[in-house]
Amino acid sequence: MELFYSKNIAEGETSLDRQESNHCVNVLRHRTGDSINVIDGQSRLFKCTVTDDNPKCVRFAIDEVVEGYGSHPYHLHMAVAPPKNTDRFEWFAEKATEIGVDEITPLFGEYSERKVFKPERVQRILVSASKQSHKGSIPVLHPAVSVKDFISGQAGTDALKLICYCDDVAGLGVEKINIVESLHTSPDEDIIVMIGPEGDFSRSEVEQAVAGGWIVTSLGESRLRIETAAVVATAAVYLEKSR
Amino acid sequence: MELFYSKNIAEGETSLDRQESNHCVNVLRHRTGDSINVIDGQSRLFKCTVTDDNPKCVRFAIDEVVEGYGSHPYHLHMAVAPPKNTDRFEWFAEKATEIGVDEITPLFGEYSERKVFKPERVQRILVSASKQSHKGSIPVLHPAVSVKDFISGQAGTDALKLICYCDDVAGLGVEKINIVESLHTSPDEDIIVMIGPEGDFSRSEVEQAVAGGWIVTSLGESRLRIETAAVVATAAVYLEKSR
Repeated sequence: MELFYSKNIAEGETSLDRQESNHCVNVLRHRTGDSINVIDGQSRLFKCTVTDDNPKCVRFAIDEVVEGYGSHPYHLHMAVAPPKNTDRFEWFAEKATEIGVDEITPLFGEYSERKVFKPERVQRILVSASKQSHKGSIPVLHPAVSVKDFISGQAGTDALKLICYCDDVAGLGVEKINIVESLHTSPDEDIIVMIGPEGDFSRSEVEQAVAGGWIVTSLGESRLRIETAAVVATAAVYLEKSR
Repeated sequence: MELFYSKNIAEGETSLDRQESNHCVNVLRHRTGDSINVIDGQSRLFKCTVTDDNPKCVRFAIDEVVEGYGSHPYHLHMAVAPPKNTDRFEWFAEKATEIGVDEITPLFGEYSERKVFKPERVQRILVSASKQSHKGSIPVLHPAVSVKDFISGQAGTDALKLICYCDDVAGLGVEKINIVESLHTSPDEDIIVMIGPEGDFSRSEVEQAVAGGWIVTSLGESRLRIETAAVVATAAVYLEKSR
């Protein structure tokens, strides 16, 4: 059954916006009296009955609320440097949403080819992917930020912080740990993963991360594109924390 | 460094085809005397020197051979029902190649929306993804086949055979096992995974699989699109067998 999205439903606004209303009435042919399911993007599913099938503004009554609909047993924040090709970041956003992610931050690294990020398309994809994969929560898309500012901003966080670094760690005073090992040995269910740009993180970015308590992790031996690495990391968290 | 591909290099054919030659000379501006690296698609990387920079047919001499270039410590066959949208299967083929897959078979299930598969674009993607991700082997793309024929065809195989089934297993006489558990508890490095169509495998397809020694597996609680499920399964094998 297709889901609808209404942001302010929990505050008592029992109507769909113009786009959702058009889809509801003109495409799916719902009429007054029909049952529809609506997510609020904040984990809840509302089972409703259509009270006014206006194709510009559908109104409904709430019959039942389901908390934590389609939720997952961990909190994951994926901070990913957008690749040069914007389609690829959009693929990642869609796939990460289906699998299970809570927050996404686009990162600009020292070696990033891309230093501009337009959030609108990705935001739409997060909403549609959440509806399509039956999740009550829509991942939060944060404003793009530099790697160093992101690391500073997470300084007080009590989460498992993983930086996926391709290059050698010699001289950094730490070992590189396989992501599955990091997740397996940590009881944390609050996880942040950083995926760097095409040219990898810079040495000084990794040094700052290590100083900030980030664990330098490996995603294995394969040479993965940014969006592939990001989806593999998301899958690693999902698979390990769902066992 | 960009890789080139020459299928018959191991049989003594030390030249690039028209497309590769054009790219080599006109795009990358290689000239006689330059070093180039060429994969044969069967695990080997050849370090070569250009002897004739003809943009229609580059010739080269082999200086060194590297066996098992970019290889992975398992053998994975992904049998996946192509989704209605062909882009999505192509996306899976590219990602699976980057991560590490050896064989791909498109499947037609009883509930498949798509019963026609054109291999040419996917074949090109397998070649380009192998070069881009620095793998000496190009995954083998088998002809599309029905789920039931595929199960019969794998009857004699001594591999870990996993069928990812979304529906309930009540009445089948087996339990559904999480894919990570299946991989973790099996020493097998020869693995076959089946991913069904949008409508899932049919009951009779699963019964045939169970009778054929396939383990019914779960990819967790999330509702994944076909291509997402296929990439998550590929990642699960890669992450578990690379630890």
